Amino acid sequence: MKKVIFKGDIVFTPTKDKFQVHKDSYLISENGKVVKILKQLGNEYNDYSIKDFTDKLIIPGFIDLHLHAPQYNNIGLGLDKELIPWLNTCTFPEEAKFYNVEYAKKTYKQLIRDLWRYGTTSAVIYSSIHKDSTKLLMDLFIDSNMRGYIGKVNMNRNAIPELLEDTKISIEETEEIIFEYKDKSSLVKPIITPRFVPSCTEELMEGLGQLALKYDIPVQSHLSENMSEVKWVKELHPGLPNYSSVYNQYNLFGQTKTIMAHCIYNTEDELELMAKNQVYAAHCVYSNYNLSSGIMPVREFLDREIPVGLGSDISGGNSLSIPSIMCGTVQASKIKWIETNKRLKPLTSSEVFYLGTKGGGSFFGNVGSFEKGYELDCLIIDDSNICDVDKLTLQDRIQKFIYTGDDRNIIERYIHGEKVHKPL
Amino acid sequence: MKKVIFKGDIVFTPTKDKFQVHKDSYLISENGKVVKILKQLGNEYNDYSIKDFTDKLIIPGFIDLHLHAPQYNNIGLGLDKELIPWLNTCTFPEEAKFYNVEYAKKTYKQLIRDLWRYGTTSAVIYSSIHKDSTKLLMDLFIDSNMRGYIGKVNMNRNAIPELLEDTKISIEETEEIIFEYKDKSSLVKPIITPRFVPSCTEELMEGLGQLALKYDIPVQSHLSENMSEVKWVKELHPGLPNYSSVYNQYNLFGQTKTIMAHCIYNTEDELELMAKNQVYAAHCVYSNYNLSSGIMPVREFLDREIPVGLGSDISGGNSLSIPSIMCGTVQASKIKWIETNKRLKPLTSSEVFYLGTKGGGSFFGNVGSFEKGYELDCLIIDDSNICDVDKLTLQDRIQKFIYTGDDRNIIERYIHGEKVHKPL
Repeated sequence: MKKVIFKGDIVFTPTKDKFQVHKDSYLISENGKVVKILKQLGNEYNDYSIKDFTDKLIIPGFIDLHLHAPQYNNIGLGLDKELIPWLNTCTFPEEAKFYNVEYAKKTYKQLIRDLWRYGTTSAVIYSSIHKDSTKLLMDLFIDSNMRGYIGKVNMNRNAIPELLEDTKISIEETEEIIFEYKDKSSLVKPIITPRFVPSCTEELMEGLGQLALKYDIPVQSHLSENMSEVKWVKELHPGLPNYSSVYNQYNLFGQTKTIMAHCIYNTEDELELMAKNQVYAAHCVYSNYNLSSGIMPVREFLDREIPVGLGSDISGGNSLSIPSIMCGTVQASKIKWIETNKRLKPLTSSEVFYLGTKGGGSFFGNVGSFEKGYELDCLIIDDSNICDVDKLTLQDRIQKFIYTGDDRNIIERYIHGEKVHKPL
Repeated sequence: MKKVIFKGDIVFTPTKDKFQVHKDSYLISENGKVVKILKQLGNEYNDYSIKDFTDKLIIPGFIDLHLHAPQYNNIGLGLDKELIPWLNTCTFPEEAKFYNVEYAKKTYKQLIRDLWRYGTTSAVIYSSIHKDSTKLLMDLFIDSNMRGYIGKVNMNRNAIPELLEDTKISIEETEEIIFEYKDKSSLVKPIITPRFVPSCTEELMEGLGQLALKYDIPVQSHLSENMSEVKWVKELHPGLPNYSSVYNQYNLFGQTKTIMAHCIYNTEDELELMAKNQVYAAHCVYSNYNLSSGIMPVREFLDREIPVGLGSDISGGNSLSIPSIMCGTVQASKIKWIETNKRLKPLTSSEVFYLGTKGGGSFFGNVGSFEKGYELDCLIIDDSNICDVDKLTLQDRIQKFIYTGDDRNIIERYIHGEKVHKPL
């Protein structure tokens, strides 16, 4: 049995309402999972090895519930457009390049290095439509020892010709990847990834939903990001009451574990269905800013106990940094409150920390917190350059880190209790 | 005569509507000022020294029109409050500590090092009410060789006792600083700084306005940041039509060069007065987010030709980085458009770059651009880690830097043609 103790200033959010803090304490782990947290060590721990991070923060690793790997080269570009023209002129042409496995390799290696750098220990990722590049991304992720769900994108309508798949081949290749990767790694798993309703015919969605049920594989897609998009879906599926019901009709809406990105313009009925089916919402604040989409009313989702996590949504979003996205998420909730709807109380620091750790982490199982039985996925934060660690409370230190820190403050990363080294 | 040529990829915004770019060109300077930009050098430049920054971006230094030096230790803290409770519980108690010159010295040195690090070459700064700490800040700024306007804060009502000044002493100390510093340095100048209307009696404002006129010294204050504040000013000055007219009554609203921070809730009449008096608005997007103030309708100001620059507003704001603030400013304008007012067209990348360079820089004179006669205040940007510099246009490279770069990309800073070394 692997017995390791992490000593330091421990901060996490078992519930979203407040930080749990343990100053100068011992996090006991066995076989990569948390056992307990102690203020003092008894003799029974003499045979545990100790990692001494005195005065450093020990926090859960960050969780990114939504990002597009093949858009990484485009980060920071083309952000003068809204969703649909941005897809057609910037994003689809770039994604089409990923038929080239060598091009993909260079980009994906850089992305994985940067996820590591920013302290993201678990990520839910869209690849492109290309089977071989998707497998490559999964293998690189497995090599990195980071946690991920990775999905080959499916799309067979309303895109540039290079990105339109034959329906049958799209489903077959998805099944091939599922079959090959479902048990290959304990950390990296496949996820079924219809791009969004406008990109997928009913036949394709039907086939993908059947695969999800057959193999009990999770699903990710996009929902109600932009008003023109919502209108378009209504035109494409006039017989169904709303956007969510299209996915739901084809077993792609919580029949297996599901994440929907954005969720800005959901109707009351859709929110009820998300709550009932426990569909995750991935809130991607910077993408929603950059593409002039709007601000997701996160408070509504929390009040209804719909699961929520945070997403970078590269390259609609312009930052991989989950702490920066936490900061942006609080700010956006304040703006939503002051500019749009005084019923939606702004989010707090502990709430967004929860969303970026345990909230998103729950999609992976017991991930994103330090309660007994949780995976020991953690970051070591040296915040001595941004505050006087002796004078501030742990609550203030974690806020300082979220609002003013950066990747340089993250000095080590652990997943399942193992140190994660910088990916090659 | 000092004759220097900077070679590299030159980008700036003579007008806000588009970037002017010069790939692999020569910026000719004489005695710290720009003479011209050439694609090729003739023999007449043989006696100029050349600084070779091939493949690096050469851009104007950044301008921060609004920040509070004595709040720097509080950056990232206490951001769960709105303006007035935030002032009373977080900000005033911290500012009160700056009677202690040693405490001030440690904080101000760190602030100046960080301004340097983030590429801010000119800043307009509030000190605290304390004369000696203010002089210290001015001297440290002079030592750093950076450009600044620095103002001792005046306040004699509605604050904690430690920050309430005697009116006569407040005015006398302000005059003492003006007298001592108005000609001491070509780069660092005093600015008259009534905190905001609720902090200053009519007698104090009257005295400060007279000083502004007597010495032709510029003025800075706050305007219409928060709806409760606007209401409070109305209660304090029921005889005047609006917030701006209080300042205007006392010669603190464009009678000399003036900056007003925030300007979110200005009335039509106030906008007209700002345009007429050419009062600068300092837009502080992250502070306005953090304190739930709202989003300034920047487009209205640009349409009316009111001068606008960007401010970090430390510590209501949580970042000193002007490129990050440029990015946030575009994003906020998109959110204002989609969530609040479809008449206000979102800002573009070139517009926010202009605001953070030439727009704010014009407060300092010919600063923030590279036209003939402009001060050679520039940054050298190595963006090779965030893009392929050979493949992207200069417009795309500057956008990548704004959206995804950070202080590590800034490799050298120059002010008046002189290299600025890291402050001690």
